[in-house]
Amino acid sequence: MKYPNQYSDELQLLARVEETMHALLPDTESTVRNAGYHHLTAGGSRVRAKLAIQAACALGLDEPASVAISSATEILHNASLLHDDLQDSDPIRRGQEAVWKKFGKNAAICTGDLFLSAAYAALACCRTERLTELISHMHQNTEKVISGQQADLEADTYTKKAYEKIARMKSGPLLGLPVELCLIAAGYSTFVPLAQQASYEIAIAYQVTDDIQDMDKDKVKGALNYTSLLTGSPTEAIDEARAYASERAKKAQRAAADLPSGSGLGLNLLAQRFIHANEH
Amino acid sequence: MKYPNQYSDELQLLARVEETMHALLPDTESTVRNAGYHHLTAGGSRVRAKLAIQAACALGLDEPASVAISSATEILHNASLLHDDLQDSDPIRRGQEAVWKKFGKNAAICTGDLFLSAAYAALACCRTERLTELISHMHQNTEKVISGQQADLEADTYTKKAYEKIARMKSGPLLGLPVELCLIAAGYSTFVPLAQQASYEIAIAYQVTDDIQDMDKDKVKGALNYTSLLTGSPTEAIDEARAYASERAKKAQRAAADLPSGSGLGLNLLAQRFIHANEH
Repeated sequence: MKYPNQYSDELQLLARVEETMHALLPDTESTVRNAGYHHLTAGGSRVRAKLAIQAACALGLDEPASVAISSATEILHNASLLHDDLQDSDPIRRGQEAVWKKFGKNAAICTGDLFLSAAYAALACCRTERLTELISHMHQNTEKVISGQQADLEADTYTKKAYEKIARMKSGPLLGLPVELCLIAAGYSTFVPLAQQASYEIAIAYQVTDDIQDMDKDKVKGALNYTSLLTGSPTEAIDEARAYASERAKKAQRAAADLPSGSGLGLNLLAQRFIHANEH
Repeated sequence: MKYPNQYSDELQLLARVEETMHALLPDTESTVRNAGYHHLTAGGSRVRAKLAIQAACALGLDEPASVAISSATEILHNASLLHDDLQDSDPIRRGQEAVWKKFGKNAAICTGDLFLSAAYAALACCRTERLTELISHMHQNTEKVISGQQADLEADTYTKKAYEKIARMKSGPLLGLPVELCLIAAGYSTFVPLAQQASYEIAIAYQVTDDIQDMDKDKVKGALNYTSLLTGSPTEAIDEARAYASERAKKAQRAAADLPSGSGLGLNLLAQRFIHANEH
């Protein structure tokens, strides 16, 4: 079924993704269930679910495949947040206490494990002969994100090159995954590297933009910030960082534009946000 | 291909499982790779891999399916050990330093996450139209184990009933999983509850037997031990615990005996160990 790309359809599918994610919580009352519910209901912009829905629609995937890929990538991203917050000791997530802070470190490990496992269960609902390829690809991207997170935890001194590599590995694979899985499901595996390229550029644009916003906060915390890797006055560093983030986002747009049947539109619009944030 | 159930064939398949597990480590040098390698090369009796190989052979599954199910269940079990050791602060695993102790807590989280994800990638190599069902079942059992681990971490006072429930949930689902996945792959889904029953009984027999052996150690540590839940003198408690473990193992054998085509033989032999340990 190819459904029209209308706002109401997207909202309907997003509601189904939300239902699917909640259905993956344990049935019986438990700390893991409560922690998972606390995390899921804290909001979040569901960027990955929306990317998958847009790409699935553009590529003419059926609704079960669209919901499966959207739910899987969104819940996988949330698994990574649960463990990252614990590892980085970040006490706040989406304006409320992070799971490790509210329910304890062990509960955060268990809940993240549940979400990681549930992501595969969600993806398996995509009934296609390409399921092996889909799962294998999701694991490859997960491995990259895990390696990126570990590299970030270990980094003590950064160069611009090291910063870029970590930014790309930490966020890129899970940003590209929704579109990449849709491409694989639709038989367009050869376009996966192009989607990866777009997502890596967006990951860098996102991280640099985030750093510009957090400059003062990071200075107080002594945390790494892209602008601190630049020479020149603070104003010059900000200008240079803005220009850099914008340039990377434009590279992402060029890659996304070459994806088949408009399946890169979601990535394009996401990249546009970072151009807008840095040029206005 | 139905291969003869000979010791040399089992060894060959086990070697392929070992190769498959190592191939799931990241290619490039990193802490996660080193930690995973450290954990995998520490030994371990590969009980789950052997259970899968035996059941796959009995049910006439082909070699790729046998290796996929064996590798997936073994690596999933090892994922659970990586996170459990961290959560329980157990410094030693298989006679050497546990990953969290040697490589740090964050590395243990990342490495456990990698193994958990890799388990699904391994299972996806089982090219069958029943892949959705296999993945969904693996997730269900993973959810049970996570809930069991969290319940164990939270338990402060135990009754015999609570002890049993936690012992069953913590170890049962991953002990039964190798056989259950083989049954599903072979089209015998209706026998899954029977395999679960056998594995739950074995889980209790295993935990009680372990507690009898660790009685003195647990007393020093103030750790929970099944014998401490029993009344009577220490000798009477040991006798009662032994009889109980043995009785549960025999129940497991009766369930395993009713599995199709001798696919419960591995579970039967495992149960036999606990009868032997407690009656000799």
